[in-house]
Amino acid sequence: MIEPYSPDALRALCRSGEFTGPTAGHAPGYVQANMLIVPREAAYDFLLFCQRNPRPCPLVEVLDAGSWRPRCAPGADIRSDLPGYRVHHLGQAPEEVHDITRYWRDDLVTFLIGCSFSFEEALIHAGIALRHIDQRRNVAMYATNIPCQDAGRFKGNMVVSMRPIKAADVSRAVEITARMPHVHGAPVHIGQPHVIGIADLARPDFGDAVELMDDEVPVFWACGVTPQQVARQSALPFYISHSPGKMLVTDARTD
Amino acid sequence: MIEPYSPDALRALCRSGEFTGPTAGHAPGYVQANMLIVPREAAYDFLLFCQRNPRPCPLVEVLDAGSWRPRCAPGADIRSDLPGYRVHHLGQAPEEVHDITRYWRDDLVTFLIGCSFSFEEALIHAGIALRHIDQRRNVAMYATNIPCQDAGRFKGNMVVSMRPIKAADVSRAVEITARMPHVHGAPVHIGQPHVIGIADLARPDFGDAVELMDDEVPVFWACGVTPQQVARQSALPFYISHSPGKMLVTDARTD
Repeated sequence: MIEPYSPDALRALCRSGEFTGPTAGHAPGYVQANMLIVPREAAYDFLLFCQRNPRPCPLVEVLDAGSWRPRCAPGADIRSDLPGYRVHHLGQAPEEVHDITRYWRDDLVTFLIGCSFSFEEALIHAGIALRHIDQRRNVAMYATNIPCQDAGRFKGNMVVSMRPIKAADVSRAVEITARMPHVHGAPVHIGQPHVIGIADLARPDFGDAVELMDDEVPVFWACGVTPQQVARQSALPFYISHSPGKMLVTDARTD
Repeated sequence: MIEPYSPDALRALCRSGEFTGPTAGHAPGYVQANMLIVPREAAYDFLLFCQRNPRPCPLVEVLDAGSWRPRCAPGADIRSDLPGYRVHHLGQAPEEVHDITRYWRDDLVTFLIGCSFSFEEALIHAGIALRHIDQRRNVAMYATNIPCQDAGRFKGNMVVSMRPIKAADVSRAVEITARMPHVHGAPVHIGQPHVIGIADLARPDFGDAVELMDDEVPVFWACGVTPQQVARQSALPFYISHSPGKMLVTDARTD
């Protein structure tokens, strides 16, 4: 049983260094957000990329350049209130840190992007079981051949997450997630993984593989890992992201 | 009876100078868009303004700097295919022109923004009469005290459009327009105009006044004139907009 922290309490534990784990299942009922921080000179292209690709990049909030105070989490400091960060310098392996205050610059622009944890809650609430959650694994994610729309230096293909859904429940899963465009919305593809360039479901590009039963269909949603992939491919000299699974927990309610 | 042109045919008539009137009612079933064109140096702030204020500024498309070819209207040239434009130079009255090709620069970024013509079609289709359309007038628009969220140089209050709706139909009008967030979405205010700083419904700030019957409630929607107001107040040295009511007709279906 996971401790049901309030968003504020969980962020305080991140700040003090007491909480360093993934945020899935914590602070249930509150929106969690992917984070990407880029220098101001790249911010226009990235904002345009999000505007043109709302399925993988549904914006929750864009902070003013230099600001670390999100409106969606009053009192929070995005430099210390996530459980983990990755600092990316071009040509080097990303550095894993628990605080980015010493990397802060006045020209950094923070993008908060919706995360599928919110729609997973809605699916479970509707009685649609999600195997990776029951098995306490990370969701399976795959690079695809679905092109995103370019925006300046940012270009690349979509990353998707896959959840096995019982054939009888697929329609309902579409309806439920279509109502949540701020957290990726309806599936981008249902069944037939080879059509979007996925050769083997058993070998995801990110996260953990999950078994597909013979009464189930693989259902694919646009994934918040897309912007990180696209940032990596853009040869940006410097940017910061959250560590996978270690999200900003906001005060916004998922409903 | 208005001629039901196809979007392509209507744009060709604009290009040749044969069509110079307002676009309301033409090319029914197709999305029409407000247009604002700003230099690249102001584009980040304006894109951020739209991201932070999606009700008055629902983005349909943002073109690459220097591009005049919108994806939402294949074959169109936004420099010639609207019936009329306003070219704004700081400190001067806007210049009304039918073609902006001679003003074009490689650093100009075109923003296309959703327009209420689309949700009006949905309301009428649902049997909710709209008096300004029956009377062939422009919709009544008002400056309000509802602040938009600032984004850099762009700041200001929201402009709203008002439609008298029968009290029995207000709930249905909310439901219908809430389903159309790409064209302003649900009303921002219902009844009690003084609460949002409107002293006299009979004196709109833009458009034409319309009578309110005693079985009706004034219903207010965020209005696409907001970005033009905000651009005017931002002291931008140069920008271009469509002429009021003379929209870009796109190939996107309203449904």
